[in-house]
Amino acid sequence: MQLTRREAFSAAGIAAGVCILSSCAPAERKSTQSETGRDMVPWPYHELDPETTAERAYHYHYDGHCMYGVFKGIVWQLAERYGEPYRSFPCSMMTYGAGGVASWGSLCGALNGAAAVIALFASAREQQVSLTSQVFLWYEQAELPVYVPVRPRLDMPMPGSVARSVLCHPSVALWSKASGYPVAGKEHMERCARLTADTARRTVIVLNERVSGQAPRSMIADPQVGRCNACHGRDGEQKDVLGRMACGSCHTSLSDRHPDTLATAPNSL
Amino acid sequence: MQLTRREAFSAAGIAAGVCILSSCAPAERKSTQSETGRDMVPWPYHELDPETTAERAYHYHYDGHCMYGVFKGIVWQLAERYGEPYRSFPCSMMTYGAGGVASWGSLCGALNGAAAVIALFASAREQQVSLTSQVFLWYEQAELPVYVPVRPRLDMPMPGSVARSVLCHPSVALWSKASGYPVAGKEHMERCARLTADTARRTVIVLNERVSGQAPRSMIADPQVGRCNACHGRDGEQKDVLGRMACGSCHTSLSDRHPDTLATAPNSL
Repeated sequence: MQLTRREAFSAAGIAAGVCILSSCAPAERKSTQSETGRDMVPWPYHELDPETTAERAYHYHYDGHCMYGVFKGIVWQLAERYGEPYRSFPCSMMTYGAGGVASWGSLCGALNGAAAVIALFASAREQQVSLTSQVFLWYEQAELPVYVPVRPRLDMPMPGSVARSVLCHPSVALWSKASGYPVAGKEHMERCARLTADTARRTVIVLNERVSGQAPRSMIADPQVGRCNACHGRDGEQKDVLGRMACGSCHTSLSDRHPDTLATAPNSL
Repeated sequence: MQLTRREAFSAAGIAAGVCILSSCAPAERKSTQSETGRDMVPWPYHELDPETTAERAYHYHYDGHCMYGVFKGIVWQLAERYGEPYRSFPCSMMTYGAGGVASWGSLCGALNGAAAVIALFASAREQQVSLTSQVFLWYEQAELPVYVPVRPRLDMPMPGSVARSVLCHPSVALWSKASGYPVAGKEHMERCARLTADTARRTVIVLNERVSGQAPRSMIADPQVGRCNACHGRDGEQKDVLGRMACGSCHTSLSDRHPDTLATAPNSL
């Protein structure tokens, strides 16, 4: 007998060991339901092994790049163990995030994949923001990549760098500067494969902590973000800016003492 | 009889009027198939009416924000007409793109949704990049929003602005500056709902053109991007930068005559 997707989802939902993330946060609002009730998120999340996830994501990167690597590295383990609904997800669509989406250099594809997979398992906005921000803050501040593949495609000493941004363009540029390797070469591809592994591992750690009820690791945003948002953010006097990205990555002329020094941002905003 | 998702996909694939985008570009490589063959993209795309799509996306924005609005505004029309595989896609996961992903201000969620939906209907990398870039270039350069809802949630004269970026943070900041409205207010939400409508409409226009075999509209990237990439890009001498975003949105001290004037970028890259 083959199950319809809806039946499969229901069966998965009552399987032993399942924790639907939203059930771990009873105060949150229910997920948005489509007109037919089929558009059901969150999907059940089952704890995964971070190291296994990292190695899978690393190899998937070589099939479909960064966003695909993180997303499939997580979802496909659940597909292999539990079948539907995971198995029918068209993971290959996630190739679109490569190079900061279509090589535009915007959001790092590994982070786009992390945010997408988190949204599959956590539908409430507050929970999405909390879990996603844990991964984003880690990425901004960590020296990456760290992961050493069990079966490396390119066996090399891998220099690390701190992105100070969630965007692909500065992340890659700073790694190129730190390592001396050119962009778009085989070393760059290996760097992004290992970064994909690191990001998938971190995403699973964050999801596992949530399922097991552990308090999230304390992640502190760049202090400049708070100082800028105190005036410019939604609760500030000026209310002319939204964002949580590290300001100094683009606004490099901002003094550490801004606004005391009245230094202005370099761009014309 | 209920169909499995795979059977439904096959049935949809042979339905009259279907055009699988990849079949319109026979030279492209075949899509990545998962281990089981279930991860099948591209899905069939059927031409949609741009105006209907815009109005739907506008209202969906009020349910799940920008990325969800664009994605569901397109996919759900196909779900209503053709059922599977569209109907089972968990569209609600796309709420994650709001505010440049979890309010971080990175990639505009409307564009993240556009790129995601394009990837569902065009699996080859070259085609994804081409179609996505048409939407991204339009967004960078157009004064938006343009769309006037048939049934507005907030009936107001809507000031427009040119984002000069694909990122949420500068896009919102420049609109706030141009309009005088604060961020996170009801006018800002209405602006983003109309921007979502505009982006969904443009995405459908680009997809329809591809299906009908029309040549894509000529979209010219900011000339500065070409000048910068001539030295810094993968084919340049320095090979230290990747990206297609308008450089001057962040690197505002770059002279229009760079590199002749040897002006450096404001940040430390």
